[in-house]
Amino acid sequence: MSDTVVAQMAPGSAQVKMLINAADTVVSDALEGFAQAYPGMVRVMRDPDYVVRADAPLPQRVAIISGGGSGHEPMHVGYVGRGMLTAACPGAIFTSPTPDQILAATRVSASQAGVLYIIKNYAGDRMNFEIAIETLLTEGMSVASVVVADDIASPSRDLRRGAGATIIVEKIAGAAAEMGVSLAECAEVARRAERQSRSVGVALSACTIPALARSSFHLGDDEIEIGIGIHGEVGRQRATLAPVAQLVDHLCGALADDLGLREGDRTLALINGLGATTRMELYIVFCEVARWCATRRVVLERSLVGNYMTSLDMAGCTITFTRLDDELLQLWDAPVCTPALRWGV
Amino acid sequence: MSDTVVAQMAPGSAQVKMLINAADTVVSDALEGFAQAYPGMVRVMRDPDYVVRADAPLPQRVAIISGGGSGHEPMHVGYVGRGMLTAACPGAIFTSPTPDQILAATRVSASQAGVLYIIKNYAGDRMNFEIAIETLLTEGMSVASVVVADDIASPSRDLRRGAGATIIVEKIAGAAAEMGVSLAECAEVARRAERQSRSVGVALSACTIPALARSSFHLGDDEIEIGIGIHGEVGRQRATLAPVAQLVDHLCGALADDLGLREGDRTLALINGLGATTRMELYIVFCEVARWCATRRVVLERSLVGNYMTSLDMAGCTITFTRLDDELLQLWDAPVCTPALRWGV
Repeated sequence: MSDTVVAQMAPGSAQVKMLINAADTVVSDALEGFAQAYPGMVRVMRDPDYVVRADAPLPQRVAIISGGGSGHEPMHVGYVGRGMLTAACPGAIFTSPTPDQILAATRVSASQAGVLYIIKNYAGDRMNFEIAIETLLTEGMSVASVVVADDIASPSRDLRRGAGATIIVEKIAGAAAEMGVSLAECAEVARRAERQSRSVGVALSACTIPALARSSFHLGDDEIEIGIGIHGEVGRQRATLAPVAQLVDHLCGALADDLGLREGDRTLALINGLGATTRMELYIVFCEVARWCATRRVVLERSLVGNYMTSLDMAGCTITFTRLDDELLQLWDAPVCTPALRWGV
Repeated sequence: MSDTVVAQMAPGSAQVKMLINAADTVVSDALEGFAQAYPGMVRVMRDPDYVVRADAPLPQRVAIISGGGSGHEPMHVGYVGRGMLTAACPGAIFTSPTPDQILAATRVSASQAGVLYIIKNYAGDRMNFEIAIETLLTEGMSVASVVVADDIASPSRDLRRGAGATIIVEKIAGAAAEMGVSLAECAEVARRAERQSRSVGVALSACTIPALARSSFHLGDDEIEIGIGIHGEVGRQRATLAPVAQLVDHLCGALADDLGLREGDRTLALINGLGATTRMELYIVFCEVARWCATRRVVLERSLVGNYMTSLDMAGCTITFTRLDDELLQLWDAPVCTPALRWGV
């Protein structure tokens, strides 16, 4: 290869050490690349931005739509496709999608069967989805929504953030919609999956926000933050780094207490990397979660281990438990074909 | 959740800030977790360590076996399954698997159709696979091998390291084996895929090796390293961070020159994250690679964008081009069902 030195970035244009063109085109450039990577699966629309299944709208099928700030990839755009989301609205980095995006995505993807919104419990997301819903209701569309609030870091449910359960609710609602059930049934099963889920996160380092070129908080060499949010929100407890077995025991105990998970209960576990954590570490965390379940005689029916809902380049992970019943398990196992989750097809 | 502070790690046991139990049990604990995550797909054997398809050995099918140091997950263990590897041998971190591992994996997974080894071009890997091959030949087994040496960072082919093409060769050889072709035909198609592939990498930061608890090299705030190896080998050129469009133009130009990629040629592009790089960045890199192909009238037939061959927590990516013909494309598209790559099933 040539030894020509790569030219320098124009002064002022490099504010953060990332593989980007400029901080203000990150979302736009990434969406263009995403569109090129999955041409048969999704269509990426611009201004307003949304991603929709290539085969939408599907007659007699409830549309399942989600959205949220960018920076959590593959969520949500990576979950658009058969058996999961009909459409997703990516906002700016860590910023809610606008009502315009939600309306445009809905009009392209919804049939007369109606639309179910999956909304993470953040004030901005809730407000913008509500604005869109009000408009659609005046137009006579059938609309329902489920708010995901699974992060146990906040003591009050009203304040709980949406975390890993979002993926699980999207998968389960998408499977129900694919089977052709009604909007009311889709909403019921999505809400049940949400109620049966709890998450908790731990960060080893903060993420770097492109436009700010700085970390969202700082952790010492042996410090971890428990209960962090996926936008770099400071957690509720700073602790010293411990061996994973000990850390997982603490986190799983907290999840089980909150969920009321008991001996004989069946569960799905999602071990989610926040961005910069190696897959080996995620498997080590999962190994300890599986041991914890075995010790407590909780039946670990299914698992998902990988980067499913990141926080840019944060190091750390979240653990989600969803208590399963036969129907939730069947919907989880149903075929799915999206950029980030694929089985059975 | 409880506010109990997580107990401190025992003095001396925490050498690196990772989600692990101890530096010396990283590979072992991760393999245990991996085994629990994919029980229907793979069997994980210990002492010596290897991962084998749950349904091996397959009569009348060539066994496809690879291996290499751990720390590159999902490679290789994540590629064991239908349509790809029959078995994989994970060494210690950044350390070749031993001949014992290779022999044990081979004896469990090979039928009379023989075995094809896919070996990355590192001295240790080559030596240990050669030792195993000599033993197996004396036992009368049919053996062939392909050495992957696609990283253009080294000027001489003998010294070229195995990089992203390894994944592509494993996929293509695995598809051929699944179709029931002979060992000679599997080896031919694997060697052709290897010859038609070139890779180059760029690092924005070095990786942290658990047992050393330090970075393999240091980069300044605006420095990047072009031509890095996946074990933290220093690259052949240090440059200043540039916008991705400019960087990709430089890297794709170097790949195309070396491969002799011309207008009208058909190619597969693999944009591989090295561990800590966000998926948005990988899509931005891919967006520019797709633009580069369009400008040069190179036909971008297929792509793969994600973390497929990491270097622990290194930030950066590798780009691989594989020139496709009809047969290579058909084998690439064939069904695959492994923990890390799944389509068509």
